[in-house]
Amino acid sequence: MNEDGRRYESLSAPEWPIRESIAEYETGWYTGGYDRVEQPDGSIKKYYWAELATAVVIIAIADDSIIFVEQYRPTIRETHLELPAGVVETNESFTSAGKRELREETGFEANNLLLLQDLWCSTGMLRHRRGFVLATDLRPVEQTLDDNEFLSVHSVPVADAIEVARAGPTNDATVEGILLASEEGLL
Amino acid sequence: MNEDGRRYESLSAPEWPIRESIAEYETGWYTGGYDRVEQPDGSIKKYYWAELATAVVIIAIADDSIIFVEQYRPTIRETHLELPAGVVETNESFTSAGKRELREETGFEANNLLLLQDLWCSTGMLRHRRGFVLATDLRPVEQTLDDNEFLSVHSVPVADAIEVARAGPTNDATVEGILLASEEGLL
Repeated sequence: MNEDGRRYESLSAPEWPIRESIAEYETGWYTGGYDRVEQPDGSIKKYYWAELATAVVIIAIADDSIIFVEQYRPTIRETHLELPAGVVETNESFTSAGKRELREETGFEANNLLLLQDLWCSTGMLRHRRGFVLATDLRPVEQTLDDNEFLSVHSVPVADAIEVARAGPTNDATVEGILLASEEGLL
Repeated sequence: MNEDGRRYESLSAPEWPIRESIAEYETGWYTGGYDRVEQPDGSIKKYYWAELATAVVIIAIADDSIIFVEQYRPTIRETHLELPAGVVETNESFTSAGKRELREETGFEANNLLLLQDLWCSTGMLRHRRGFVLATDLRPVEQTLDDNEFLSVHSVPVADAIEVARAGPTNDATVEGILLASEEGLL
């Protein structure tokens, strides 16, 4: 049980018996560990995992533009033009987290929020769930960045969004968010 | 430098100075660690990361069907109907890895392979790159599963692929692969 103020998903009952589940790398950002699992052939295997709090990615559409943020990502040492995103807090829904993150990161308050999709990420390793939230009916308010957020806000024409999202350097959250919006007929 | 037979991407020169980079959790599957980074305001922050070898996801289309695999994922304790995927080996391209993984997991040999997209995943935490490969011109050969692969192969009509991919429980690699194929006009 994490009590760091962030939302984590509960796991289903396992289909393969778990002999042991050990958390052994606590970073304050994610937790690393392993489960010793009994496979269908009776063999035992250690499956290493890393648990990261649930995230929300926001597709915010105003008139004929989508809001992107340009942000340096120290983990991969690259700057990406990407969709706004952030961690969901305990007891927040995807839509309430999306509304808060969009306001904090970009200074836009959204009156309409809709969860388009939620899913697990990189399931060979991560315990990390991500929701994609559509935000519309926007009005400018005050941007309130966390003290470790250094980013600039960009407006990308809807007609260019797929090309901008897919152009390198890019990331999964941005490409997937824009393709979901396209699939939903929103672009 | 990893020498485990798997492919890892080299990182760009950092835009923010790195004071220290420490790998401290070696699992044999992924490596956890942190960089102490000087932020634009001069403050120092530890950015924790986890490095996982590069992966390939395969969208294999034969006639009017797409090949899915049904597989239990011990990390999240769920069975997903998902696109075939696997780790890229050292010196493999995305397309050669996609060809090999498709043959091993599903028993289909593809004669045409095309990289549709590659990108970084979960960039707030992971150093993990993923490529999406289209595989066509398929013929059945012998399936050769690794000894920790327990999966069944399914054929999903192209017309149902988006609905099947998006229906829960699902994962990012599968949704993104199918949406990319749709965006490219392949479905």
